[in-house]
Amino acid sequence: MKEKKLTTENYKGTRDFFPEDMRIRNYLFSIMKQVVRSYGYEEYDGPMLESLDLYRAKTGEEIVGKQIYDFVDKGGREVAIRPEMTPTVARMVASRLRELPRPIRWFSIPNLWRYEQPGHGRLREHWQLNVDIFGVNHHAAELEIFSLACDILFAFGAPRNSFRLKVSHRSLLDEFFQNGLKLKPEQAHDVSKILDKKSKITQDEYVSMVQKVVPNNNDAVTLIDQFLNSNIANLKEIPGISEDSYQKIQSLFSDLESLGLRDIIDFDPSVVRGFDYYTGFIFEIFDTSPKNKRSLYGGGRYDNLIGLFSHEELSGTGFGLGDVTLLNFLQTHNLVPNLSNENTVFIPLLDETFFLSCQTIAKEFRKHGIPVDQALVSQKMGKQLSYAEKKGYRWILLLGEDEIAKNLVTLKDMQERSQETFSLEVALQKVNEQTKK
Amino acid sequence: MKEKKLTTENYKGTRDFFPEDMRIRNYLFSIMKQVVRSYGYEEYDGPMLESLDLYRAKTGEEIVGKQIYDFVDKGGREVAIRPEMTPTVARMVASRLRELPRPIRWFSIPNLWRYEQPGHGRLREHWQLNVDIFGVNHHAAELEIFSLACDILFAFGAPRNSFRLKVSHRSLLDEFFQNGLKLKPEQAHDVSKILDKKSKITQDEYVSMVQKVVPNNNDAVTLIDQFLNSNIANLKEIPGISEDSYQKIQSLFSDLESLGLRDIIDFDPSVVRGFDYYTGFIFEIFDTSPKNKRSLYGGGRYDNLIGLFSHEELSGTGFGLGDVTLLNFLQTHNLVPNLSNENTVFIPLLDETFFLSCQTIAKEFRKHGIPVDQALVSQKMGKQLSYAEKKGYRWILLLGEDEIAKNLVTLKDMQERSQETFSLEVALQKVNEQTKK
Repeated sequence: MKEKKLTTENYKGTRDFFPEDMRIRNYLFSIMKQVVRSYGYEEYDGPMLESLDLYRAKTGEEIVGKQIYDFVDKGGREVAIRPEMTPTVARMVASRLRELPRPIRWFSIPNLWRYEQPGHGRLREHWQLNVDIFGVNHHAAELEIFSLACDILFAFGAPRNSFRLKVSHRSLLDEFFQNGLKLKPEQAHDVSKILDKKSKITQDEYVSMVQKVVPNNNDAVTLIDQFLNSNIANLKEIPGISEDSYQKIQSLFSDLESLGLRDIIDFDPSVVRGFDYYTGFIFEIFDTSPKNKRSLYGGGRYDNLIGLFSHEELSGTGFGLGDVTLLNFLQTHNLVPNLSNENTVFIPLLDETFFLSCQTIAKEFRKHGIPVDQALVSQKMGKQLSYAEKKGYRWILLLGEDEIAKNLVTLKDMQERSQETFSLEVALQKVNEQTKK
Repeated sequence: MKEKKLTTENYKGTRDFFPEDMRIRNYLFSIMKQVVRSYGYEEYDGPMLESLDLYRAKTGEEIVGKQIYDFVDKGGREVAIRPEMTPTVARMVASRLRELPRPIRWFSIPNLWRYEQPGHGRLREHWQLNVDIFGVNHHAAELEIFSLACDILFAFGAPRNSFRLKVSHRSLLDEFFQNGLKLKPEQAHDVSKILDKKSKITQDEYVSMVQKVVPNNNDAVTLIDQFLNSNIANLKEIPGISEDSYQKIQSLFSDLESLGLRDIIDFDPSVVRGFDYYTGFIFEIFDTSPKNKRSLYGGGRYDNLIGLFSHEELSGTGFGLGDVTLLNFLQTHNLVPNLSNENTVFIPLLDETFFLSCQTIAKEFRKHGIPVDQALVSQKMGKQLSYAEKKGYRWILLLGEDEIAKNLVTLKDMQERSQETFSLEVALQKVNEQTKK
């Protein structure tokens, strides 16, 4: 009877990163880190498990109720696998509120978990670049964050017209709901949740959901439409909007104009972010391609998160960019480069007695930062070359009896389909020169 | 009444990585990756949650029973946060057994979780470099793995006498127990678990534990001592050891001699690895410092792990190196470099109207890969300089009315305590030249 074998499948909604997938992930991370570091942001990380209380406070109900990976540990503690990073960064900043020089500019690329039905761009485990600045009340923080958020896409080669950044301010929504539509706080909360989901439901569903929450106002849907479609010029005509909020928008956009970012940034009051902790400007970046017309990432300002831990307040502004969404964007716009192993040098083993000579040469190349795959078992030449080809290696370094006797090496360039015999130094130099840095 | 605040403490047994901690973690990872890649190993990663069944099969009982973070997900699946990486890599290799060119050389630096009482070098979350080679039956795989494992410590600047690699082979223990001591399989298993713990318990505890498992053999403790203290010269005198096993050790050490590794590698039959899946050579690297005399890391050969998933067999050899242990070793030997932010250029804001000019200069530096922290709010000069000092920045770029009018910048070098006014190009060049790469 055959013994039962374990499945090789990974857990639902997750990914195995084979070397070719990992090369892409490393490429995404390295470009993101390069841009974020160029703005003086420093990397941090927190533990993957946090106390469940951390999320109960401010993460949206839908996430904590249905989507969080929570359990009780063997010591009776209620813990959760982090579904987002903002609560962790707020906790860490709060723990050193006195010592940290301000502004605090931090970033991280944590893996996050949500229990969801896996689908296009939605997985149970994903990685997310989190960028945050704390301690700047002025909208100069927004200017920096927007500029940085756009520079990340530019660094991947995204054309200027491939995306748009859309901005709103929480107070617009609040004022319109409270003073314009005269909604009670719970109604306002429910309508904002409906707006956040609007693009994922039909117009009929949307209308009936709004009418359910605001039953005694027949104009509600029309007024909301008017609000959602307003622009800076007619924003003052929207019922409930204060002069102060209008000035905030006006002044931000005037500075965006000076910084040369106005052409890719829009005012858009329909931007509503899911998290309850946002209190100021909120924004989302959208792909403009008709093939991938969706929100790529976003963020905003949160003034009260530090206050969960401390009696002091500290304003934060930040965003999160997921790896799956980013990769979809890059694929849609044909921006994923061809990443290969071609820089690796392969040294076949032509005879077992050559092993030591091969190792000496391998060491020399490795010392110069060139990766070497040394064959460990002697096999037919054809088999070894076919292995090198499958691996995508460009360079093959042949050491036969002749080479060893004369202290030379034969270098085969699989790309140019050429081969020549050199001294070790010349071979090293040749590989080094031709290596893509 | 004061409102109750959330704790800023992280979950027990974990670490918050503040920027200064993260710089060390990044340094550790980058040196490890550099060495491992220089041997042609490719990076992979798997999901952080796996099916609990994956560990039930071969991970030691102690871990699966008491130390694993397992729970039932919202869909009723039994899952575990990975306590080790070997089952994941075996699963992934097994899933592409036909396609992957052999040998398969892979590495990863996953975070792993164990529910333990936190203590020196023991945390609930840690990171571990995992290096594995599959598909080489010859001990050439061991030669490569040992050489690589030592090169990692050398790359951190470890002196040749700061550690020793100790090797044994599972068959020695098996033969000695079965044919020398005539133990039954369960007894052999129990005694090997006792030996694995030997360094952590007293001699009296050890003796009484052995006598409990082997009650009817008064010589057991003496014979085990003789076995544990044997060397290559007298290995053949140990009861039960076969000629074949002796030859394996003899031949490996003769090749280690040729490769110039014999001086740091010992044969040591007292090496017993905790995981049940090892089947061939096993090894551990020990710190030689009297202050930190403990096992740093280790690994071995496992022939049957792929067989859990497939009817084909594929031999693997590998090791795992934890970040906490590595850092302890480096600290003991004074090998942790001083990692700072000094390469960052700080641009204070002397007047709000200069913001745009400052941003233009900042962009130019960032384009050349130099990180720039641009002040977002104008403050007194003293306050801005004190911020730059706290952050550890070396360079300050001053833009006043004069500089802006003349298209110049004043560069202050906090290290040399000097300042000079240059054109942007010269300032860029100067910072670039003096920057530690």
